[in-house]
Amino acid sequence: MTKLANAQAASTKPQAADVQHFITVAETPQDVLTRIFDESFRLREERNAGKANEPILKGQTLAMIFEKPSLRTNVSFQQAMFELGGTCIPMVSEQVGLGKRESPADVARVLSGMVHGIMARVFEHHKLVELAAHSTIPVINALSDFSHPCQALADAMTMMDEFGRDLKGRTLAFVGDGNNVAHSLAVMCGRLGMNFILASPPAYEIKQEVADTIMADCPELNMELMQDPIDAVRYADAVYADTWISMGQETEAAIRKSAFEGFQINDKLLSKAPEHCIVLHCLPAYRGIEITDSAMDGPRSRVFPQAHNRLHAQKGLLAVLMGGK
Amino acid sequence: MTKLANAQAASTKPQAADVQHFITVAETPQDVLTRIFDESFRLREERNAGKANEPILKGQTLAMIFEKPSLRTNVSFQQAMFELGGTCIPMVSEQVGLGKRESPADVARVLSGMVHGIMARVFEHHKLVELAAHSTIPVINALSDFSHPCQALADAMTMMDEFGRDLKGRTLAFVGDGNNVAHSLAVMCGRLGMNFILASPPAYEIKQEVADTIMADCPELNMELMQDPIDAVRYADAVYADTWISMGQETEAAIRKSAFEGFQINDKLLSKAPEHCIVLHCLPAYRGIEITDSAMDGPRSRVFPQAHNRLHAQKGLLAVLMGGK
Amino acid sequence: MTKLANAQAASTKPQAADVQHFITVAETPQDVLTRIFDESFRLREERNAGKANEPILKGQTLAMIFEKPSLRTNVSFQQAMFELGGTCIPMVSEQVGLGKRESPADVARVLSGMVHGIMARVFEHHKLVELAAHSTIPVINALSDFSHPCQALADAMTMMDEFGRDLKGRTLAFVGDGNNVAHSLAVMCGRLGMNFILASPPAYEIKQEVADTIMADCPELNMELMQDPIDAVRYADAVYADTWISMGQETEAAIRKSAFEGFQINDKLLSKAPEHCIVLHCLPAYRGIEITDSAMDGPRSRVFPQAHNRLHAQKGLLAVLMGGK
Repeated sequence: MTKLANAQAASTKPQAADVQHFITVAETPQDVLTRIFDESFRLREERNAGKANEPILKGQTLAMIFEKPSLRTNVSFQQAMFELGGTCIPMVSEQVGLGKRESPADVARVLSGMVHGIMARVFEHHKLVELAAHSTIPVINALSDFSHPCQALADAMTMMDEFGRDLKGRTLAFVGDGNNVAHSLAVMCGRLGMNFILASPPAYEIKQEVADTIMADCPELNMELMQDPIDAVRYADAVYADTWISMGQETEAAIRKSAFEGFQINDKLLSKAPEHCIVLHCLPAYRGIEITDSAMDGPRSRVFPQAHNRLHAQKGLLAVLMGGK
Repeated sequence: MTKLANAQAASTKPQAADVQHFITVAETPQDVLTRIFDESFRLREERNAGKANEPILKGQTLAMIFEKPSLRTNVSFQQAMFELGGTCIPMVSEQVGLGKRESPADVARVLSGMVHGIMARVFEHHKLVELAAHSTIPVINALSDFSHPCQALADAMTMMDEFGRDLKGRTLAFVGDGNNVAHSLAVMCGRLGMNFILASPPAYEIKQEVADTIMADCPELNMELMQDPIDAVRYADAVYADTWISMGQETEAAIRKSAFEGFQINDKLLSKAPEHCIVLHCLPAYRGIEITDSAMDGPRSRVFPQAHNRLHAQKGLLAVLMGGK
Repeated sequence: MTKLANAQAASTKPQAADVQHFITVAETPQDVLTRIFDESFRLREERNAGKANEPILKGQTLAMIFEKPSLRTNVSFQQAMFELGGTCIPMVSEQVGLGKRESPADVARVLSGMVHGIMARVFEHHKLVELAAHSTIPVINALSDFSHPCQALADAMTMMDEFGRDLKGRTLAFVGDGNNVAHSLAVMCGRLGMNFILASPPAYEIKQEVADTIMADCPELNMELMQDPIDAVRYADAVYADTWISMGQETEAAIRKSAFEGFQINDKLLSKAPEHCIVLHCLPAYRGIEITDSAMDGPRSRVFPQAHNRLHAQKGLLAVLMGGK
C-alpha cells in the first residue's frame, strides 16, 4: 500500500533542533543576522525600483498568533508574506487559547504539519520558547514581555540608512522605559558594535536581572544606564523614544506620566544632541506625551521610514528563515 | 552607497494631494464617478461570462479598518481585491486603535509606506477625513456616521440594471430614517439627475444641517422631504428601505419601532406605487419590521441583486482608484 | 442593452437543490464520501512528494463563519483553500450576526452572489440547515451542537493510514462524552462497515433521540453503548478520546471531571486493549484530564497525524464540493 506507506514516511518531520527560529537577537547567530540585513536591503531595493520580488515563499503560509493587538507587526508581516509569494493565517488570542485551551507545545505540533512558519505576539516569553521547542517550522517572536527582536531589525536598518551598514562606534540613546524594546535594541547594539545608553527615571530603570542577561548574552556591549536624559543624548547618533504607557499599563497612566516628566523627546532635549542625531520611535506615539509633534515631524525624525522598514526587515527575516536565503 | 541613497529617494512619496480618495459622493468628480460605473459594469459582464478579470491589482494590498461589524462590505471588498489579483488585510477596531492608540494621521502615514489602499468603516466621519489628508494611498469610506458612498454606487447600479444607464428624471423614494445611507443616496440621485424623496416620521427627518449640506454639495438635486410614505411612493421608480434600528441604537429599539409605524415597506404601501416600481434595501433587513417577507421576496424586489452589486461596484471603484482605470 | 440583459441573465443562479453540501455524514451519498477520501489521499500523496497541488480552486473563495473559536478547523480550511489555489474570508460571530442581525437564509442569499462556498461553525445545527436550504453554493458544517462531520473524515483517514482503506469489521471505542464528535463518528463507522462502541458514565450517555437518529440514518451500524471503559477497549482497533469539558461547559468543569473519573485514556486502560490498538483525540486535549501525556505521546498515539489529516481531508472535501472532483 504505497499510498499509506508514503503518508507515514512523510510524517517523519525534520527535527525541531534543525530549525532556525527568531526568538531573541541574542540567540541569533551572527551570520544569520547578516543575511537578514542583506536580504532586507536587497528586497527593499528591488521593491523601490518598482520590481516585484521573486516569489521565494510561494505556497508557504505563516500562522500568526496575536495575544496583543498590533498594527505595524500585523500589516508588515502579512504584506511581507504576500510580496514574497506566500500568505498568512492571522489569529487572535481566543482562537488559539495558547496555554489555556491548549499547550504551546501541542499548538506547535499541530501547526507544524499544516503550515510553514509561526509568528507569535505573546504576553509571556516562555510561550515562545515552548512553541519553538516543539515546532519543526520556524517560530518568530513578534513581541513578548521580554523582547522585541523584529523591531530591533527595523531600527538597525534605519540607522544603517543614515550612517551606513557599519554602525561600529555609533551611539544609541534610549530615553524612557527600560522595556522589552530597549532590551532587544541593547543586544542589537552590542552585535553591531554600537554603544547603548539607557536613560530612565528612578524605579523605571531596566531590571538588574535583565541588564545582567544582556551583558551575559552580549559581553562586548558598551551599555550605560543613567537617569539624566540630557547626559544621555549628548553624544548620541540616534535618540530613541517609546511610549511611557504600554498596552496593559493604562491604569497607572497618571503615575507613569509624572515619573517620566523630563524624559520627553522635544526640541529642547534634541538641542543638546549632536546636529546629525536622528530621532526614532517604535510607534504608536502618544504625541505631546513622550514625544512632541516637532520632534516627530521635524527634520531629525526618521520615525516613519523606521516604521516602513518593519516591512523590509520582516521580508529579510522571512526570506532567511523560510526561503532558504 | 547607492543602496541607501536609493532607499532614501524612494521615501519621497507622492503628495497626498495627488491621490484620488473616495470619501463622499459629493467630493468625487463626475468623470471619476462615470469611470467607476463603466468599470463596474465591464468587470461584472466579464465575470458573468465566466471569465476571470484581468489581475490589474496584482501585488496590491488593501488595508481594511472596521470600527463596526460588516458582512457585505467586508466580503465584497475582499472578494473584489481577490478577483482583481490583489489581497486584503482586514483589521478590527482594537487592532488599530484609530484615534485612541494612534492618530488617524499617523496610521495613514504608516500604512502609506506598506500597502496600496485603505478602506475604513468608522463611527466618526472626521477620522476618514484625517486619514485621507495624510495618506499617499487611496482612502475609501466604507461607512461613517455621515455617509455611505459605496452603498450608493451599488444602489445606482441596481437602478441602472432596471432602467438603463441614464436615470435622469427617475424618482427614488427613501422611506424611513434620514441616515447616512439616505445622505449618500440623495447626493448620488442629484449627480444622476434623479429626484430624491425622503419620507420620515417627525423627529426622524434628515437633520437640517445635513439637508443643507446635500443641497450645497448638489444644488441641482430635486429633493423632497415629507412625512407621508404613501405620498412618497406614488411616483417612485424605486422604493428604498433601511433598518429603523442601526448598529448602536439597539437600546432605543422600542421607541423607534413605534415612531416608524406606518413606514413599513409592505404590499399595501407598494400597491400605491407605479407597477414598474422596484424595491431596494441595503441590508441587513429585519423582516417583519421595516419590510415584509412579501416585499423582500416578491417580484418587485431587487434586494439581493443589489447586495451582489456591492461586489461589482467595489471592483469598479478599486479599478479606478488603485488600478489606473 | 446587451450589458444589462447579460447581468440579469447571470442572476438566474443554479437552484439550491443542485448543490452538494456537507452538513452531516448521514446526508452525504456514499459515492461522494468515496470521492472525498480518494481526493484526500491523492492530494496528500502529491503534497508529501513535495509537489504543489493543481490549483483546481483558482479564483474561488470560501466564506468562513465562526460562532465558536477554532484552531485546527480554521487553519486547515484556510490552508486547504490556499493549496488548491483559492482563498478564504474568515469571519467571527459579531461580523455576521447569523440569526441575530440577519437570518441565515439572507446571509446565504447574499454570499451566494459573491463567493463560492460557505463554511460555518455554529452553536445551533438548524442554522446550517437554513444556510444550506437557501444557498446556491456549497455549505460545509465545521461543527455544530449536533455533529462534526469534517472531524470524522480526518479520523477515518487516520484509521485507513493504519489499517488500510477497507475498515470493514474494525472497532472504534469512543471513551467519554457522547457528544457531536461521537455522533458523526458513529455514522462514519456505520458507513465504513465498522463497529462503534461508546463508553460513557451514567448521565453523560448519548441522548436516546440522537442514538435513534444515528440508527435511523445508518441502520447497518453495529453500535454498542456501555458504561465500562475497560469492556469498551477490549477489542478496539482504535480508542478515541475527546475533552470532557467542551467550549461553553467551563462552569460545570468540576462536576464533569468527577463524573468522568475512570474514563481517562491512560497506560492502564490501554493495557486492556489489543496491542495494535491506536489512540485518537480530536484535540485540544487537556493533558492529565481525559488523556495522559504517556497516551498522547506514546507509541500507540496517532493524535498529531490525525490533526494533520484535517488539512488533507478538508482538501479532499473542497476538491469534491467546489472543484468538480
